[in-house]
Amino acid sequence: MADILQVLGDIGSRVDEKMLELLAVGASKDFQEVVIHQVQAGGKRIRPALTILFCEAAGGTIENALSTAAGIELIHNYSLILDDIIDDADVRRNLPTTWKKFGLNFGILASTHYREAIEEAILQSPNPLAISRIVADTIRELVEGERLDILFEQLPGTEEYTEKHRYHDVTLEDYETMIGNKTAALIRAACETGVICANGSAALQTAARDFGWNAGIAFQLADDMLDLFAEETKLGKKSGKDIYEHKLGNTVILNALPLLSEKNRTYTLKILRSEKPSDADVRKVIGLLKETKASQIVEKEAAKLVNDAKNALDNFPNKEKTKLLATLVDFIYQRSF
Amino acid sequence: MADILQVLGDIGSRVDEKMLELLAVGASKDFQEVVIHQVQAGGKRIRPALTILFCEAAGGTIENALSTAAGIELIHNYSLILDDIIDDADVRRNLPTTWKKFGLNFGILASTHYREAIEEAILQSPNPLAISRIVADTIRELVEGERLDILFEQLPGTEEYTEKHRYHDVTLEDYETMIGNKTAALIRAACETGVICANGSAALQTAARDFGWNAGIAFQLADDMLDLFAEETKLGKKSGKDIYEHKLGNTVILNALPLLSEKNRTYTLKILRSEKPSDADVRKVIGLLKETKASQIVEKEAAKLVNDAKNALDNFPNKEKTKLLATLVDFIYQRSF
Repeated sequence: MADILQVLGDIGSRVDEKMLELLAVGASKDFQEVVIHQVQAGGKRIRPALTILFCEAAGGTIENALSTAAGIELIHNYSLILDDIIDDADVRRNLPTTWKKFGLNFGILASTHYREAIEEAILQSPNPLAISRIVADTIRELVEGERLDILFEQLPGTEEYTEKHRYHDVTLEDYETMIGNKTAALIRAACETGVICANGSAALQTAARDFGWNAGIAFQLADDMLDLFAEETKLGKKSGKDIYEHKLGNTVILNALPLLSEKNRTYTLKILRSEKPSDADVRKVIGLLKETKASQIVEKEAAKLVNDAKNALDNFPNKEKTKLLATLVDFIYQRSF
Repeated sequence: MADILQVLGDIGSRVDEKMLELLAVGASKDFQEVVIHQVQAGGKRIRPALTILFCEAAGGTIENALSTAAGIELIHNYSLILDDIIDDADVRRNLPTTWKKFGLNFGILASTHYREAIEEAILQSPNPLAISRIVADTIRELVEGERLDILFEQLPGTEEYTEKHRYHDVTLEDYETMIGNKTAALIRAACETGVICANGSAALQTAARDFGWNAGIAFQLADDMLDLFAEETKLGKKSGKDIYEHKLGNTVILNALPLLSEKNRTYTLKILRSEKPSDADVRKVIGLLKETKASQIVEKEAAKLVNDAKNALDNFPNKEKTKLLATLVDFIYQRSF
C-alpha cells in the first residue's frame, strides 16, 4: 500500500501543477484566488491517477495523458463546487466551500470558468475530438446523477418543482442508476480517456471502460459502508452523514429496509424523514442496519465488482502499470471493508 | 426593415429546432421540460443570424453553419440562465426565469446541461477544434464581464467578498472592458465562427471579428440609451432599469457624470446608491442626464462603430448576404436612436 500512496502522491503533484496552469488561462488577476480555491483544498487525485496509469498500461507516457488527467480531475472539482451549492455545504476538507467563501455569485462564476479550463485540457490532449465526446457525455451523466440525488432526499424542502418530483420510494435499481451517473461514469471516463491518450485499441478502450465502471460502483458501495460503519476518526467526519442528510440513496439502507421488521422499518424511515434526527436516533438506526445482513450483501457485491475490474486488466501490454491499477482498486475498496 | 425581420424569423425557426435537438441529447425524460424552458421563452436570435449570414457571405451555406449558430444562441441562453440567478431575476420575456420556475438547484443543473449542448453543437460543426477554441475563450470573457458587472453595482450587498472588491468608482474604461467581455465578445464569436463554418480565409475571419466587435459595442450603447430614454411602451419594461438596479455601468450615465454640476452629480450618485429609489427620483435623474450632452456623445460613438462595422464587410464574396448584414447592424442600432 505504501507504493500506491507514493504513486498517487507523485501523480497528484504533476496534476495539481497542470490544473493550476489550465485554470489560469483567461482568468483575470483578481479572479485567480476564486478559481484556485477548490483545487487547493486537495484530494487523493484517484481519477487522474487512473487516466495516467491506463495511458501507461496501454503503452503511452505520463506526458501523453497529463492534460487529460488534469481535465478529468477538474471535472470532479467542477461537480464539487456545484454540489456544495446544491447541498448548501459550508465546509469541504476543513476549508470553506468556494460559494461559502466567495458568495453564491462568485461560486457560480468559478464553476463556469472550470468548465472552460476543462475545454482547455481537451484542446491540449492528443485526441481532442474523442475526449470532447466523452467529456460531454460524462458531464451530462453527472448532471443526471445529481438530479436524482436531489430527488431521492427524504426531507421535504421549499422548492415546489422538487417536491412535485421527489421520489417517495427509492428502489435499489433507482439508486444504481443514480450512482452510475454520479460516481461511476466519471471514473469510467478517467480510465477510457487514458487509453485514448495512448492511442490504444478499441478493445483496450472497452476493457478500460469495464474496469472503470466496476471500480466506480465498488468505490460508491465502499463509500456507503464507510458513511454508516466507519469509526469517526477513520472517516474524519461524523458517521451516518447520509442519515443526517435524509438520504435513502445508500445501498446499505436500501438493502436493509426489506430485511427489517415492520416496526423497525417504520422507525428507520421516520428518522430518515425527520428534519434534525438526534445523535441517539442515528446511532440506533445504524445499530438496526448492522443487525441485518445488508452489509454482507453489499460487501459481496463490491468484492465481485473489484474482481471483475481486475479481470478487465488482462490484455494491457505494460504489466507493471497493470499491477499498479489492480493495487489501486484494492486500495479504493479496502478503505471500508 | 420588413426584409430583415423576415430573415431573422426564418433563421430563428431553423435555429430553434436545432437548439431543441441539441438540448435533448442526454437529457432524461423528466429533465426535458427544465432544459427547454429558457430557449422556449424566445428571442430575436440576432446572434445565430450573424453566424449564418457570415457563413453565407463568405461563400458557405446555412447547413454549414446551423449547428454552430444554434451553439452560439445556446451560449447566450446559458449566460441568461446564470445571469438570472445572479441578478435574482424572477421574470424574463413575461415568463418565470428557469431558476424561479424550477428552483435554484434545477436552474444550476439546467445551466450545466446547456454547456454540454454547446459542446454537442461544436462537435457537429465543420471545424470543431477552431470553434471549440473560440467558444472556450468567449465563455471565459462572459464570466469576466459578469464578474465586473457584479462589482460595478452601487448598492451594498450581503456577500463579504463582493463588498471587499466592489468598484466605488467606475471609469468609462472599466465600463468598456465590462461590455466588451459581456456583450461584444459573443457577438464577435457569432460572426467569426460563421466564416470558419464556410472555411473562409484568415482575412475574412479578421474582418468578421472587426464587424462583430464594433457591432457588439454599438449594440450595448444602443441598449444603454434605450434603458434610459426609450418610451416605456417601446421598451416593454420600465425605463431607467439600470438606475433601479443601481448600475453605474451605463455609458450615458458615465458620460454625463462629469458634465453635471457638483450638486446634481451628488444627487445622481445618491439615487444610484439608494436601495429603493422612487419613480419620481428616477425620472428626475433621467431628466438631468438628458440635459447634458451625454446622449449626443454616445450617439456619435455608436454611429462611428456602426460605420466601422459596415466597412469590415467590403471583401466578402456574397454581396447579397453582405447587404443583409449591413441592414442587420442598422436594425440593431436604430432600435434606440
